Amino acid sequence: MLRAGGYRILENRLRFPRSGGVMKIPEILVVETVHRPGSLAKVLQVIADAGLTIEHLTALRRDQGRTLWEITVEMDEEADRSLYDRIGALPTARFVGKSDRVFNRHRGGKIRTVATVPINTRQMLRDVYTPGVARVALAIRDNPEAAHEFTARDHTVAIITNGTAVLGLGNVGPLAGLPVMEGKAALFADLAGISGVPILISETEPARVVPIIAGIEMSFGAIQLEDFAAPECFAIEEELRRRLDKPVLHDDQHGTAVVALAALINGARNAHLTLRDRVVGQIGLGAAGMGIVRLLKAYGVGDILGTDRNPAAVERLEAIGGEGCTLEQLMQRADIVIATTGVKGLIRPEWVRPGQVILALSNPDPEIEPLVAREHGAAFAADGKGVNNVLAFPGLFRGALEARARQFTDAMLIAAAETLAGLARAEEELVPDPLDKEVHEKVAAAVRAAAAPGS
Amino acid sequence: MLRAGGYRILENRLRFPRSGGVMKIPEILVVETVHRPGSLAKVLQVIADAGLTIEHLTALRRDQGRTLWEITVEMDEEADRSLYDRIGALPTARFVGKSDRVFNRHRGGKIRTVATVPINTRQMLRDVYTPGVARVALAIRDNPEAAHEFTARDHTVAIITNGTAVLGLGNVGPLAGLPVMEGKAALFADLAGISGVPILISETEPARVVPIIAGIEMSFGAIQLEDFAAPECFAIEEELRRRLDKPVLHDDQHGTAVVALAALINGARNAHLTLRDRVVGQIGLGAAGMGIVRLLKAYGVGDILGTDRNPAAVERLEAIGGEGCTLEQLMQRADIVIATTGVKGLIRPEWVRPGQVILALSNPDPEIEPLVAREHGAAFAADGKGVNNVLAFPGLFRGALEARARQFTDAMLIAAAETLAGLARAEEELVPDPLDKEVHEKVAAAVRAAAAPGS
Repeated sequence: MLRAGGYRILENRLRFPRSGGVMKIPEILVVETVHRPGSLAKVLQVIADAGLTIEHLTALRRDQGRTLWEITVEMDEEADRSLYDRIGALPTARFVGKSDRVFNRHRGGKIRTVATVPINTRQMLRDVYTPGVARVALAIRDNPEAAHEFTARDHTVAIITNGTAVLGLGNVGPLAGLPVMEGKAALFADLAGISGVPILISETEPARVVPIIAGIEMSFGAIQLEDFAAPECFAIEEELRRRLDKPVLHDDQHGTAVVALAALINGARNAHLTLRDRVVGQIGLGAAGMGIVRLLKAYGVGDILGTDRNPAAVERLEAIGGEGCTLEQLMQRADIVIATTGVKGLIRPEWVRPGQVILALSNPDPEIEPLVAREHGAAFAADGKGVNNVLAFPGLFRGALEARARQFTDAMLIAAAETLAGLARAEEELVPDPLDKEVHEKVAAAVRAAAAPGS
Repeated sequence: MLRAGGYRILENRLRFPRSGGVMKIPEILVVETVHRPGSLAKVLQVIADAGLTIEHLTALRRDQGRTLWEITVEMDEEADRSLYDRIGALPTARFVGKSDRVFNRHRGGKIRTVATVPINTRQMLRDVYTPGVARVALAIRDNPEAAHEFTARDHTVAIITNGTAVLGLGNVGPLAGLPVMEGKAALFADLAGISGVPILISETEPARVVPIIAGIEMSFGAIQLEDFAAPECFAIEEELRRRLDKPVLHDDQHGTAVVALAALINGARNAHLTLRDRVVGQIGLGAAGMGIVRLLKAYGVGDILGTDRNPAAVERLEAIGGEGCTLEQLMQRADIVIATTGVKGLIRPEWVRPGQVILALSNPDPEIEPLVAREHGAAFAADGKGVNNVLAFPGLFRGALEARARQFTDAMLIAAAETLAGLARAEEELVPDPLDKEVHEKVAAAVRAAAAPGS
């Protein structure tokens, strides 16, 4: 899921909120209707009148002439909940409540550590714990390389956050970020056989965050930084990459960039453009936007424009060879446009140029609806549905760990993006199915191959 | 396993090495013999001549008139390995090599993170990851108590070391300590359903170690400190207990103390003494010794003597109300003697007083052999075989986490010790079987009950 960046304001009257307060989250409404024509339609009309779109609807059961429905809508925190009363006031419906399904699936957490050796005899206890383990400890003391073979470190990745930019929710703090980190750990386990370890950091200043991570990095084969806010995320990652002799990846920058590049490669191909030869414009220069720009440059795109409402963000772009401009200028000059601002409807339809490729990647609401962009002449347009960084991180880390890479290189990220692009069913989707384990195996293999020995 | 403390020197000529260099570790020798009377006896005689005791012996297979044996002996690092050649030189035997069994059981590590929810549909992905997880994140932001229910934190314990006092091996560094931490995590998983997370700290100074742990403590339900050397371990634990609002336990002090107290309760009972009314002497005031003294005081023992070759260690004892003395004075005055020095044969047989209870707990070699102590008049004597802190830590942490205790109190430690003492089969053993899961359940229940609300 792509997160909010900012954008450079074009005119004074353009004032968009940061996405912090407006992220939509799914609510599952449980409603009972009388089994009679029009009962459900009336419920849906009340929901429609509240400005909400049905995301999912399913019948839980039918009994005694009544049907119980689960209706999923996405609401932001400030949404008017009086709609529940209006549903309840219908003569043929009853508002039963909200489903706890999502919460139930998080109950007790989503990960667990298990022993991979059965410790059921005294001899096994003596072999895997004292005194036998002393032999393994001494072997590693004498040759640290032995840790690759005799510890779990080579398939263990720290998933580290300080909770300053969790999803699109903003700074909710590290503890509120834990369910997200556990979700990533669960995905690591299921999709790549990696043991993810959520680590919550209670500091925000790079000068305090970095020594904490450096002080524990020895525990892990690689480090995934997650949901650190810009601009601190840049300094934190850069300093850790400099100091640590192991793969470090800020997923919001580079994991997102890998999936975005895969989508761009396919988007450009659908419009019969060659990505490398075109002017590419990045709207939003937060963590995701900067990650995308860096990867596009490494991929060989020569002309990159960028815009953000934060002048410091534009300076960062220019420092790596991009060109800052206003949003309107960008829309006028770029052949290929990517937006990662978190701001719904930011791109006005009249700005779209014929033949343009537009990827409005913010979730849940894109900067411009693909259909609208195409009606205004775009050769190809897509939103960020399905552009999920779970496509990238499991394979990226699996490949880096298998190669015993000392860092993530651009070559590794590009190999992952090209593999993802190639695995999508052409014309139908920009990126493949994230639940297809073969996708992650192929990404891992490509990353491993791209990791130069000792890279 | 109990670790080395030190001891106060009695005479100038008593100079015992710290145990760092002399810890014995098991070697499994693979030897082939001709299937004929005396073949195996000759091999064992060569081993006996090298001063080594057979720990275990098993036939792997018999084929073509030859038998393949696995012979386990415990050797320290400096032991003379030329014995392998002498076995090979026997006319009826061949030294095949050393078994990799122990190493094989550590290959790839001993723990793994697994997902506890099956992420196999798009809807499940949306519920446990984005966007559904946002609801859980917001619930925790608004009410941090919700983390108890909707994250894995309440069954997750950090197992933290800086590798400065690993087993009896001394300062082998954090990485060499990792197999030990993984072993503890595997035991946590198997015996108490707890997710143990090995954390290696690259610093040794308390002023640098504490901020690192404090910076990540939010990730865990409780903190287990492990294999930190004395005296730094005392300052590190004390400061963390002061700063953190969750259970912190230095296992080498308090986990060991719980098991030692259980053994002492049963040892005193076997000699028909009441522990609380007697003079107790602690030989060795390192982490284990100080932990035992503190717990004995909390248990109600009034007169505690202690000795250590390090004057600072004796000062620490006196600061908590114990009385420092020489080793010989201690042996003269104490009714009950506990030794945790790691120094084989430290207690001279002629020092034993009739009616004394002696627990010489150092492994693998006690300060005095129990048989020798009894021959010299001890009412009861035992060594540290079976006195393993794996008996305590799984149930201690399970109970503390279930009670949502804010710290480990003496009452919790004593409850664990009394439970362990009660579970041992009287007369036959000092402590129960650590692989009996019911033991850990009962310890956990006792600890939970002893944790006052909000303790």
